[in-house]
Amino acid sequence: MNVVLLAREEVGPDGIVRLVDARARHVIDVLRVTPGQDVRVGIVDGPLGIGTVTAVGDASVELRCAFDATIPSRPAIDLLLALPRPKVMRRLWAQLAALGVGHIILTNAERVERHYFDAHVLSPDIYTPLLIEGLQQARDTRVPLVTIARRLKPFIEDELHVLCPDTARIVLHPGSAAPLGDAVRNASQRRVLLAIGPEGGWNDFELALLRAHRFAEAGMGPRTLRTDTACVAALAMVSAAQPFTLVMFR
Amino acid sequence: MNVVLLAREEVGPDGIVRLVDARARHVIDVLRVTPGQDVRVGIVDGPLGIGTVTAVGDASVELRCAFDATIPSRPAIDLLLALPRPKVMRRLWAQLAALGVGHIILTNAERVERHYFDAHVLSPDIYTPLLIEGLQQARDTRVPLVTIARRLKPFIEDELHVLCPDTARIVLHPGSAAPLGDAVRNASQRRVLLAIGPEGGWNDFELALLRAHRFAEAGMGPRTLRTDTACVAALAMVSAAQPFTLVMFR
Repeated sequence: MNVVLLAREEVGPDGIVRLVDARARHVIDVLRVTPGQDVRVGIVDGPLGIGTVTAVGDASVELRCAFDATIPSRPAIDLLLALPRPKVMRRLWAQLAALGVGHIILTNAERVERHYFDAHVLSPDIYTPLLIEGLQQARDTRVPLVTIARRLKPFIEDELHVLCPDTARIVLHPGSAAPLGDAVRNASQRRVLLAIGPEGGWNDFELALLRAHRFAEAGMGPRTLRTDTACVAALAMVSAAQPFTLVMFR
Repeated sequence: MNVVLLAREEVGPDGIVRLVDARARHVIDVLRVTPGQDVRVGIVDGPLGIGTVTAVGDASVELRCAFDATIPSRPAIDLLLALPRPKVMRRLWAQLAALGVGHIILTNAERVERHYFDAHVLSPDIYTPLLIEGLQQARDTRVPLVTIARRLKPFIEDELHVLCPDTARIVLHPGSAAPLGDAVRNASQRRVLLAIGPEGGWNDFELALLRAHRFAEAGMGPRTLRTDTACVAALAMVSAAQPFTLVMFR
């Protein structure tokens, strides 16, 4: 945990926050704070800041927080992902939030089993804490938006341009000779929407649908990766190729 | 499984192989082959090839294999990794092999707990099948070399130049303003040796030791990632920046 994220309503008018849950245990047991020390804090979907420890109890910590004037911008990558099996999706939530995704759209495909959509791991009660865990790792506050689009075709035809306007649309396609990084660098838009298919890939119909809606194909080389490895690898490559990332190095 | 890997001694003089284990079940149940069909095969640390199905039983498959004249080259990335906790390391083996690592060197650091080195997951009986699983996913035959270097300092001082001669040495350091991809592209060597520290990072002594032995610092931007996510992300960025990857696109 590299930042302690707080809900806005936890912060009193004078910036005082009293933690009693897992965050308190982390601050006490791992950071081993004493009064007067500073801890990195942030408000979910709000600014980052600094919390100065004012009191430490057996299982509680009190902080006086001061927050930045600005809110971190939402990561400039959106992900259209054919829903992987629940066990894999559970592992992905925190990693996607840590790598930085603005909007996570989970969709169907021929090679996605329908019962995956009934999994607990698609319930906000389950995935929100996992997203927060990833943000606390990566020191960000912006919770990815999540959309579940159970039918790919109407979603692409009717909703995508509303949810993700003005993005460079790229579909990751094993065997494509166009390097993913080049596709990002050559795009005229600042935001990227990256489509990643199921294990076994998109079928011909799905690929034609994506192509017809201006998704350019790009690849990551000759090695075929598991969905979870491919997601992490592709998001890393996209963010490395975005000029925006370099600005954030300051 | 995108290629069925075989031990050299499994292949008869006429190229005939009889499978009866999990590989047979995969070929029968997932690929649903019938006699006459071709299946991608490879010999561990040898060439790739094609196996033509000659017979299918209830739980066995016979293939007649023909192999390429050349052997895939070893991936041009080596990894010096501060040993993560066993649960994380178990998940990493297959992913490292799938992404393509020539030599995996696991080492100690102040923030690595000593008992991690006693874990089953460092036994070749455990990790070799996981490496093979990753190669079968990525359609490669070259098993990463594995070295366990329990003491970082003597390893760096006395052994590294023998095990990994002529590599660009890069240490991943959160907060470094030098983008990892640039460090790879600007290197004069074709091979890269990438050092990744433990959760919490290398300590000052370890970082000074690496710097003194020509490791250049590079970073992946402002987001701090978990070890396993960072490994996958960094290996993806390095391979995307290596000209070698582009050659392999052919």
